[in-house]
Amino acid sequence: MTELLTERSARIAAARKLTRRAGRDAAGLFLAEGRQAVAEALADPAGVREVFATEAAATAHADLLAAARVPVRLVTDKAAAGLSETVTPQGLVAVCALRDVPAGTLTTAPPRLAVALAELADPGNAGTVLRTADACGAGAVVFGAGSADPYGGKAVRSSAGSLFHLDVVRGAPLGTLLPELRAAGVTVLAADGGGEVELPALVTGGRLAGPVLWLFGNEARGVPSELAELADARVRIPMRGRAESLNLAAAAAICLYSTQLAQG
Amino acid sequence: MTELLTERSARIAAARKLTRRAGRDAAGLFLAEGRQAVAEALADPAGVREVFATEAAATAHADLLAAARVPVRLVTDKAAAGLSETVTPQGLVAVCALRDVPAGTLTTAPPRLAVALAELADPGNAGTVLRTADACGAGAVVFGAGSADPYGGKAVRSSAGSLFHLDVVRGAPLGTLLPELRAAGVTVLAADGGGEVELPALVTGGRLAGPVLWLFGNEARGVPSELAELADARVRIPMRGRAESLNLAAAAAICLYSTQLAQG
Repeated sequence: MTELLTERSARIAAARKLTRRAGRDAAGLFLAEGRQAVAEALADPAGVREVFATEAAATAHADLLAAARVPVRLVTDKAAAGLSETVTPQGLVAVCALRDVPAGTLTTAPPRLAVALAELADPGNAGTVLRTADACGAGAVVFGAGSADPYGGKAVRSSAGSLFHLDVVRGAPLGTLLPELRAAGVTVLAADGGGEVELPALVTGGRLAGPVLWLFGNEARGVPSELAELADARVRIPMRGRAESLNLAAAAAICLYSTQLAQG
Repeated sequence: MTELLTERSARIAAARKLTRRAGRDAAGLFLAEGRQAVAEALADPAGVREVFATEAAATAHADLLAAARVPVRLVTDKAAAGLSETVTPQGLVAVCALRDVPAGTLTTAPPRLAVALAELADPGNAGTVLRTADACGAGAVVFGAGSADPYGGKAVRSSAGSLFHLDVVRGAPLGTLLPELRAAGVTVLAADGGGEVELPALVTGGRLAGPVLWLFGNEARGVPSELAELADARVRIPMRGRAESLNLAAAAAICLYSTQLAQG
């Protein structure tokens, strides 16, 4: 009979370090929890080091785990809970390699749609923007220095698997990357409640047709002005009502969907 | 010198009951925390019973409180923290009357744009949808039976003041309300990832021109099928990418913004 790994085992202790950003960056690994995320991770087995499953989860997801071409290790409920950031741990966690690509891939072959985040603070928003970017066909999301980590537990969960669908660039110096992207033919647009262009005018003006990168900023402070100045345009979403602003993830959804539609 | 109310005072104990839904419904009151929410509440002083402020908050927001035409009571930091659901209490809390209006107001004078939520679970999403609905000019948001309470601390915070800008209907029996709204000339649209109509077709077909009510469902299960069947159409958002679905608040942003644009 296979022995269950407990929270005191070296493997679990090592994996638990991945619940912190410093631990993830030191190991080059992150945790993906739950059936959806683990299934997405296993689509590329080379990116998965191992999967931990409680006995209950191993039974519930026997189909998925039987097909996995990576080691599957049974763990105690307590060990699994220590790897989870949720109130109700799912008992199924994959240890995955960080998926970062260099910022240079964006300038070499700009995707038709990409997103950059400057000082985005909330990990839930980071994951939600990844999910929306994926839905709208974006090829990459750039997390600028000072942004929430897309590999944190809450971000991975909020991304609902989309983290595995597109290129992730982290820690990029946006101050140099944005001009390089413009030089490479990308239209760089900063979402800005005080922007000089309204989103519908961009659509009718045909400015969303080519490769586009949308830049979103901090939830409270918006896009830092020194970065907004580097964009081709600062774009505001027209609002008929009385709200002062939109939630960041809602604004991103509107901008990215409008771009997807305009690009046909 | 004014005595500070502590967490043991009767007023604070009564207010603390408003951090729970049962307490709010029994008293007909809710709590609005922070400068933005309190300022929005004070725009209609008849709807505010009193404001609690720590000494630090009373100093920081002296302008706002001096103009308030309601009682302002100084409280200890601990008392204020007991009224807050945030990690960093802001020390400024208004006790407000629930703002519910009867569902009948919607059928009597349908707003051009309204939202109904069926079994929406997450209070943060409830607040975010309120904020987006407000931004897009909606006149009302209906919270069907079983939906998160818009008057909870997290929902009020996520709404960023928008809770005070539009009509709120709670506990409405959507199974009877939706047909009544259709009879009153409202186009009822259910957001549904498996819907038979794509959102852009609604726009080009002119079906968003008149009064529209958007129905959104549970984050995991979507709109209950028996309610989706009562809509004029079930609408899906086209997705070019690989994400299975959009986050609920992101989907709502896309639907409501598209309607605002179509209504011109």
